[in-house]
Amino acid sequence: METSDTISKRASLKGYISSREIEQDKIEKILESGRLAPSARNNQPWKFIVIRDKEVLDNLAENAFGGPNYVVKDAPVIIIACANPKDDIVRDGREYYLFDVALAMENMILTATDLGLVTHLMTGVDGEEIKKILGIPKDVQFVVATPLAYPKGDSYDAAAKDRLSERERKPMQEIAYSDKWANPF
Amino acid sequence: METSDTISKRASLKGYISSREIEQDKIEKILESGRLAPSARNNQPWKFIVIRDKEVLDNLAENAFGGPNYVVKDAPVIIIACANPKDDIVRDGREYYLFDVALAMENMILTATDLGLVTHLMTGVDGEEIKKILGIPKDVQFVVATPLAYPKGDSYDAAAKDRLSERERKPMQEIAYSDKWANPF
Repeated sequence: METSDTISKRASLKGYISSREIEQDKIEKILESGRLAPSARNNQPWKFIVIRDKEVLDNLAENAFGGPNYVVKDAPVIIIACANPKDDIVRDGREYYLFDVALAMENMILTATDLGLVTHLMTGVDGEEIKKILGIPKDVQFVVATPLAYPKGDSYDAAAKDRLSERERKPMQEIAYSDKWANPF
Repeated sequence: METSDTISKRASLKGYISSREIEQDKIEKILESGRLAPSARNNQPWKFIVIRDKEVLDNLAENAFGGPNYVVKDAPVIIIACANPKDDIVRDGREYYLFDVALAMENMILTATDLGLVTHLMTGVDGEEIKKILGIPKDVQFVVATPLAYPKGDSYDAAAKDRLSERERKPMQEIAYSDKWANPF
């Protein structure tokens, strides 16, 4: 799909998950697109754990994905992104591992969208419990999780339609300035 | 361009900048793609300052973009991304404004690539000096800067060729695991 279409059709669709299996080559394409992302000094701090084992998926859903995130329990794949903050730069207190993992994740959710799969970046989950379940070392930080799934009904556009029609974004004049702070673009 | 091509052709190309002016509608498309990015609880903490005033561009190049980043001095546009950390969530010490700004920036550099423009995310610049020059408030953090330019010689593919041929990324087995930490994907 055209890049601009993929970017505008991407939506957070954890409510539209089918349990249909995802082909290995699609998962590989998604990971590869993350691998190609840029990072500060090319540090590539990201680690992606691809969960497909039903027991681990259930364990995550029951114990780490509470509340509104429990709906991802039927996803055939969950990707957990994590990183060791020491594998990346820190400037004036800004820990760039968070920035760099996000560059890779955006590539990955766009690639998934392009492949007709639904994703949903989830940060409001129990990172410590996820680390315990997956055996992630103490000095590695959980960053974000996303389900990876075919859409319910098998049509991405149909699944995304409602979400996209209600998408709320700040108007351009609130987020873009020209030449200096607060000067309207 | 197809999404997968855009993702694989995107490269950090600050050494391949021409001073040719960028059309307003291209800058708007780039900003719009950032505006559509997801963010934690839809917080959209990002602010983008689009610098086109030659005096401000020179001031940034001379005083904030030292060393290897000085090459961006000929860029007709610099985009500065910044955010107030209080406009986004913090979980277990992880400040998600950095994560969310990166999601938007990745959309923006992909859109620029798709439009045949070169970008280069720069974090190793003087954030405090940038804030001073642009009048960015104290509680807002500088996050990243990128030039936006037509490639020298006007062919994106020609400009990117060398950079892409020497691109170094960690092998998949170092960054992707299956079902638990350190289990090869």
